[in-house]
Amino acid sequence: MMREIIMYGLGSMGQRIARLALERGYRVAGAIDLDPAKAGQPLSRVLGLPDGACDATVSADAAEVLVSAQHAVVLQATSSFLAQVAEPIERCLELGHDVISIAEEMTFPAAACQETAERLNRAASQNGARVLGTGVNPGFAMDMLVLALTVPCGRVDHIRVTRTNDLSDFGPTVLNGQGVGLSPDAFHSAVDDGRVVGHVGFDQSVALIARHLGWQIERVEETRAPIVSSVVRATDHLAIEPGDVAGCLHRMTAFAGGREVLHLEHPQQIRPDLEGQATSDRIVITGDQTVDMVIAPEIGGGAGTAAAAVNAIEYLACAAPGLVHLTDLPLNSPRVLTA
Amino acid sequence: MMREIIMYGLGSMGQRIARLALERGYRVAGAIDLDPAKAGQPLSRVLGLPDGACDATVSADAAEVLVSAQHAVVLQATSSFLAQVAEPIERCLELGHDVISIAEEMTFPAAACQETAERLNRAASQNGARVLGTGVNPGFAMDMLVLALTVPCGRVDHIRVTRTNDLSDFGPTVLNGQGVGLSPDAFHSAVDDGRVVGHVGFDQSVALIARHLGWQIERVEETRAPIVSSVVRATDHLAIEPGDVAGCLHRMTAFAGGREVLHLEHPQQIRPDLEGQATSDRIVITGDQTVDMVIAPEIGGGAGTAAAAVNAIEYLACAAPGLVHLTDLPLNSPRVLTA
Repeated sequence: MMREIIMYGLGSMGQRIARLALERGYRVAGAIDLDPAKAGQPLSRVLGLPDGACDATVSADAAEVLVSAQHAVVLQATSSFLAQVAEPIERCLELGHDVISIAEEMTFPAAACQETAERLNRAASQNGARVLGTGVNPGFAMDMLVLALTVPCGRVDHIRVTRTNDLSDFGPTVLNGQGVGLSPDAFHSAVDDGRVVGHVGFDQSVALIARHLGWQIERVEETRAPIVSSVVRATDHLAIEPGDVAGCLHRMTAFAGGREVLHLEHPQQIRPDLEGQATSDRIVITGDQTVDMVIAPEIGGGAGTAAAAVNAIEYLACAAPGLVHLTDLPLNSPRVLTA
Repeated sequence: MMREIIMYGLGSMGQRIARLALERGYRVAGAIDLDPAKAGQPLSRVLGLPDGACDATVSADAAEVLVSAQHAVVLQATSSFLAQVAEPIERCLELGHDVISIAEEMTFPAAACQETAERLNRAASQNGARVLGTGVNPGFAMDMLVLALTVPCGRVDHIRVTRTNDLSDFGPTVLNGQGVGLSPDAFHSAVDDGRVVGHVGFDQSVALIARHLGWQIERVEETRAPIVSSVVRATDHLAIEPGDVAGCLHRMTAFAGGREVLHLEHPQQIRPDLEGQATSDRIVITGDQTVDMVIAPEIGGGAGTAAAAVNAIEYLACAAPGLVHLTDLPLNSPRVLTA
């Protein structure tokens, strides 16, 4: 029997997840969003679907929605950060619901805060529930896909991952976090004071890879550099001049056994095509054999994250109660009974 | 504690597996091979390793070796076909040993013979043992890697997989099975009477993918065409003239819901580089998003199969007793505790 789901958060990603879950035949038993423009509305209307596509009404009262269903799967899409999602997740687990979160830090919460990860694991275990973080990045492009490519390797000496994407579809919140439109000087200040964060999830990707390969990571190095444009680059949201920052080149390097074992590189910018740069996912593994993989264009972050979340519903049910990591599960492929 | 292993079969692949297992710290408790040139020899000598690299002696008496250890993992590398490996596997299972086989048909034995697959499942379950088939193809390049790439897909409409490799390192047995050196007419006769088989494993790849995606396959179409060379192509083993067959282009197409859902294409030949063809693994998934992946050169079949077999040892132990498929397990990455 298919599980009932509860949507927790109906921003752009939450809506994508809800639409895909409905398309896949899941029943949405409830939907939570604090936005006054959504609360009280029929979920179908918020999702831009015909009336009757589902019967849930969006509510701002999380507690009320959560007690109205039993042993549901809560799909959480509210924030990137563990500190902001942990408490709502704990409430869900205490009621016996399973939780799938697309918060970046939830793909390996212990890499953000060991104590909170343990608290979530306890809350889940004690209530016979499971909690999992997933998404395209972290959760796939820079970690699970890497691990998939190590299967035919007898020994892995080094892994290099580069994900080159295009932020042109995103609005001000995302673009500000990458420093788009700043001068190079202003970019460096914004990195220093935390306004430019770059990618959220390198710590999680490193931890997922290291744990699954049995690596003891000794230290990481991290840099955020401005991608300075040589040309005018324009999107629907803004235009930048030559010399302005088009995005952030965020890198993390991890060391084990006294040497570099993993290098993650994620240039995120608007309109890379205008300077001849194609978008792609590239993974190079060196060891007893070399695996050099390219996916071009890159795996879509939005559609991919929605799919990863919905696909996980069925696999999560088979895991033992507790905090679950993607590496514990079989491949979370879309299981659709008619081809 | 690391499991003890027993090597069953010490041909080229068995030797690679044994060397990698020793390198990874596994103790080889016994080794079986019928070849009079190997039986009675120290395993280290057969493997080309220094004396003392391991203490096992190769024996032609399978029964004796198998009763000399308890709850070991038997690594079987003797034949591609279920009909030839099933009975020895059953003997291992009856003694409570786990079995990892690189027989191509063992990655999904029910696709070769439902009854035998059920018999193996029973023998394993009744004795608290597990049996798994793995390898690079089938087992990775044309199935598990495909499934890994479906994780960020909400809907999969069609999958196309092309694996282009180079047979130049192989000897007469492999080359004859692909029709290398024949005239095109002789190739067609050899396909008709079963001397040219092409790739062994398409049925298994189709079954692994279909089961994991929940597809009901209605029928498959299969063709084997000669790859006719335009140039002289030579290897250490033979040389062919223009107009001769350089290899076999083997294709399988699977249909579900009344339409094509999966196309597997595996041209195997000597020296494809002489006609400008690079070797590669290519996977194209179309659905709610397009994933277009290339690995070039292709994942090495020999090293990759040895790694897949050794990597599986640790993961198999966590599975429930019975016949296990790769899709039931987490990613079989190499788990090496020092980086």
